Amino acid sequence: MNISQRYQLSLALLTDMYQLTMAQGYWKKGMAEQEAVFHLYFRNNPFKGGYTISAGLADAIDLLQSFRFTQEDLSYLKSLTGSQGQPLFEEGFLEHLRSLEFSCDVDAIPEGTVVFPNEPLLRIKGPILQCQLLETPLLTILNFQTLIATKAARIVDAAQGDAVIEFGMRRAQGPDGALSAARASFIGGVGATSNMLAGQIFNIPVRGTHAHSWIMSFEEEQEAFSAYADVFPHDSVFLVDTYHTLDGIKNAIEVAKTMREKGSELRGIRLDSGDLAYLSIEGRKMLDEAGFPKVSILASNDLDEHLIQSLKLQGAKIDAWGIGTKMVTAFDQPALGGVYKLAALRQADGEWEYKLKLSEQLVKISTPGILQVRRFSHDNALVGDMIYSELLDVSPSVTMVHPNDPTQRKSYAKECTYEDLLVPVFRDGNQVYSSPDLPAIQARTKQQLNLLHGTYRRFLNPHTFKVGLEEQLHERKMKLIIQLRSEEQNKQIA
Amino acid sequence: MNISQRYQLSLALLTDMYQLTMAQGYWKKGMAEQEAVFHLYFRNNPFKGGYTISAGLADAIDLLQSFRFTQEDLSYLKSLTGSQGQPLFEEGFLEHLRSLEFSCDVDAIPEGTVVFPNEPLLRIKGPILQCQLLETPLLTILNFQTLIATKAARIVDAAQGDAVIEFGMRRAQGPDGALSAARASFIGGVGATSNMLAGQIFNIPVRGTHAHSWIMSFEEEQEAFSAYADVFPHDSVFLVDTYHTLDGIKNAIEVAKTMREKGSELRGIRLDSGDLAYLSIEGRKMLDEAGFPKVSILASNDLDEHLIQSLKLQGAKIDAWGIGTKMVTAFDQPALGGVYKLAALRQADGEWEYKLKLSEQLVKISTPGILQVRRFSHDNALVGDMIYSELLDVSPSVTMVHPNDPTQRKSYAKECTYEDLLVPVFRDGNQVYSSPDLPAIQARTKQQLNLLHGTYRRFLNPHTFKVGLEEQLHERKMKLIIQLRSEEQNKQIA
Repeated sequence: MNISQRYQLSLALLTDMYQLTMAQGYWKKGMAEQEAVFHLYFRNNPFKGGYTISAGLADAIDLLQSFRFTQEDLSYLKSLTGSQGQPLFEEGFLEHLRSLEFSCDVDAIPEGTVVFPNEPLLRIKGPILQCQLLETPLLTILNFQTLIATKAARIVDAAQGDAVIEFGMRRAQGPDGALSAARASFIGGVGATSNMLAGQIFNIPVRGTHAHSWIMSFEEEQEAFSAYADVFPHDSVFLVDTYHTLDGIKNAIEVAKTMREKGSELRGIRLDSGDLAYLSIEGRKMLDEAGFPKVSILASNDLDEHLIQSLKLQGAKIDAWGIGTKMVTAFDQPALGGVYKLAALRQADGEWEYKLKLSEQLVKISTPGILQVRRFSHDNALVGDMIYSELLDVSPSVTMVHPNDPTQRKSYAKECTYEDLLVPVFRDGNQVYSSPDLPAIQARTKQQLNLLHGTYRRFLNPHTFKVGLEEQLHERKMKLIIQLRSEEQNKQIA
Repeated sequence: MNISQRYQLSLALLTDMYQLTMAQGYWKKGMAEQEAVFHLYFRNNPFKGGYTISAGLADAIDLLQSFRFTQEDLSYLKSLTGSQGQPLFEEGFLEHLRSLEFSCDVDAIPEGTVVFPNEPLLRIKGPILQCQLLETPLLTILNFQTLIATKAARIVDAAQGDAVIEFGMRRAQGPDGALSAARASFIGGVGATSNMLAGQIFNIPVRGTHAHSWIMSFEEEQEAFSAYADVFPHDSVFLVDTYHTLDGIKNAIEVAKTMREKGSELRGIRLDSGDLAYLSIEGRKMLDEAGFPKVSILASNDLDEHLIQSLKLQGAKIDAWGIGTKMVTAFDQPALGGVYKLAALRQADGEWEYKLKLSEQLVKISTPGILQVRRFSHDNALVGDMIYSELLDVSPSVTMVHPNDPTQRKSYAKECTYEDLLVPVFRDGNQVYSSPDLPAIQARTKQQLNLLHGTYRRFLNPHTFKVGLEEQLHERKMKLIIQLRSEEQNKQIA
């Protein structure tokens, strides 16, 4: 099957097999329609950073909108056999899938929001069978785009207002790795991409001029620059390191002079190897002395936020940064590790039963309930987030408790304004939220980061942003843990 | 645009913008049809390993087969403007793209082959405009799948014949990151995937049973196991760590007894957290003592080749390995870093001009020519690879030279058999090679690795496999470097 045809299939099978075997289990046990609540969240900010930027929701919405099993999907499921050669999936179950229509409520944090560990990025409430099938694709989409948007935001932060361009397609994890990374990088604040398909699909500005091969296909470097300038007199950025960088800059200056005589200006030069600090400082001097102070210097070569910061410290004269591998693969941490946990299950009597997944480490135990995140701000700065359950009346004092140290408590009620971060996205399977366009999401990222104090944004040992559990939710969770653990112990004694 | 609709577009725009601006440059300068040769290769084995497994060719072939610009692509290109608001691409050039038909020769190393640094995985010969446009997507596809196939081969090697299952979709870099990784992992030797779409598209065996949420949706763990066994009496693997692992194993054993009374056997238990060495050893004892020596133990939890090796050393009783994040993202090195370099250009007189990209480091200078890789074997073991140019008559003595130390030379001609690794894939744009099916590619990987001595396969400080340049090619390359460098110096003096 062609790579170009793959995605013409339904995406209902874009999930783990165990979601389907469990689905058949729920169906067979009469539980398919039992109402459940799952939360999608992560446990640690990536890159040892102090914050995370949410991204991927628009693609998740598309997935949910198109969620249905086609005849082709059902035929494939029907063809699968168990260890005894018997059909793995029953006819009745396949019929159930055939008639399945997405009917859940989904609430989520909009893209481009600053988020922190343990906050649900997405909450889904509906028939457990549906919630279960959707676990894997929701994680795939939100994990990756959130990871890359965060990486990009850090890189853009390090560039301190300089242009940042995403160049990473050739090193991305597959064609969609490249596309999704281009989208998420733009959300994080990157200004343009080299990926033409991303330009076409997402309307992201595209950038690019020429490669070493252009230079090598002419006898002389200067001839190659001249030829390029003939074709793109107003849009030339010359790559100067094919043979010897400082000579390359001299050749670029010669051609820039000829261009000026003909009425156009060279836009920039690009450094792609060598000592970028030294070469950019020398290059800037040469360009300025030759009367080209407006010719910009673009640098690339395995850059990330740490290298940009180091080059800035060294006084490098770089105006624009081309970023590839390190951003589009999130090289230093290529996966976010988001999880999707059952938090409540509606009982026969209509009451919600709280659910949590135990762990020996308190910090890894999930939080039960139907959760929302309340964000407190003061004086145009974020001060703290409180996770609460919509099933509990939030007390007027709104005291929140440190999730891992219950002796630490805090109340922001009086002096702060607040907003709840999760917004309704689907109600009974109908979409009630429309995603902003990408420039608006990018603007939101920027505005959100401006609300976050620099101590949370620094790369080395950032301050930990306060995220607490609402007091009643905390107590409910503690009781449930103690109860589950004592049941365990009783069983062990018995 | 829907994620499911994205790939219904043509993939001609799945490339970097500079490929298109250069293409317009070649067209404008009358060079569009000038014949060029590019090689795709990498400079270092990933993961500090001693070998690499080639993968991705079938997808690259699909891409080349479908290579054409649609009206939609051309409209997008037409909409792009330069810095002065002028159209960036000329009508005549867009017409050229409209009528473009892929007409190159492509030679490549079949998937599932053991390959080494600097060996061309793919060679393309044809109009420079076409070769240039295809650089980015060929790199994206071959870089990623080769990376993952190599990671998978290492993991499978560490598992020493145990079953290995790919579980990583939720942490993969986007939906296609997951799909391509499932395909490449299978090539590397993994037996099955949890990814249903990969099962459907690539016909890879699928595996999966249930998650923690299944257990949590029942009041008692044992009840949850029983319910699952009712639905899948012959295909149950119980996840035993939802509450307390050793209790979970006891519950699994109780249910296994009931299953046996009803005529079926529990297939396995799965450990997903905690000390896998301790728990698997204890679990094995408990299962054996209860009369279930055939119930297998599947382990998962951020495993990679190093952890598998460590668990084996500790005597862990694990029969099957579920591998996710660390394999599908190649966590410790998430990009291969393959490059695509111009190596020859046909001159007006019909002669080929050799081309290379200089660098201050000898090891980073590309090799010119129209390259092929000759692999020498002796006694069912690989002994050395020689890169030679098809433009030069290979001397009967076939002496090869160490690429970075010309004083080291070697000749395998007398005692060895040999084969040339690159095979014809396209001739004049027509496909002349058909990819084997995936099981055949997987078998090739296994057979190839069996030819490679253990010293090259070990994870710590592996032996470096000998890859040399054929003597004449070496001399030609050295001359060209010296010539280019002396031209530079003359210019600097002038």
